[in-house]
Amino acid sequence: MICHNESVEPTPLFEGATRKLLARGGSLMLVEVRFNAGTVVAEHAHVHEQISYVVKGRVELSKGGNKEILGPGDSFYAGPDELHGVRFIEDSIIVDGFTPQREDFFK
Amino acid sequence: MICHNESVEPTPLFEGATRKLLARGGSLMLVEVRFNAGTVVAEHAHVHEQISYVVKGRVELSKGGNKEILGPGDSFYAGPDELHGVRFIEDSIIVDGFTPQREDFFK
Repeated sequence: MICHNESVEPTPLFEGATRKLLARGGSLMLVEVRFNAGTVVAEHAHVHEQISYVVKGRVELSKGGNKEILGPGDSFYAGPDELHGVRFIEDSIIVDGFTPQREDFFK
Repeated sequence: MICHNESVEPTPLFEGATRKLLARGGSLMLVEVRFNAGTVVAEHAHVHEQISYVVKGRVELSKGGNKEILGPGDSFYAGPDELHGVRFIEDSIIVDGFTPQREDFFK
């Protein structure tokens, strides 16, 4: 599967936050999220494993209460049921890879 | 696992091409590759599933002889044993997500 970014309609999540479902297949799914400065995704967990990469911006990653600042090129892994959250310090673009696919995102 | 990009030493692949192993764990692995304009990764395949995202640059993706131009934000999925190759039109940064992890990259 090939996915051209501009061909995907962003899904609004809440004020200042959108999600695009990008390339996917088999047990992998790529998702791009764009969050404005000041938005927060509270710590949460899911059974899916996740790898995330900061494309643009600056965020404060929180993992089980442990906080760290990430910028462009930085990344993290969250295992099944591992708590993780993000506070967006600048307008940011992050790509998330999941296995298995987030079937809940299709609803 | 949290991975700061500048803390990772790039592995030279060939002239004008480097690879960094970024965040990973369980069955997921994130890899950042930087290729100069003019470099080519010939079509190849592996048992690992792959999702790739163009962070910067412009590339010609080839899948089983089928060619398509990708730019920033564009992405693709390659299934197990699915042929894929890339010709780099501009200096580019791509992030690849793999499942399972590319144990061959640790050698």
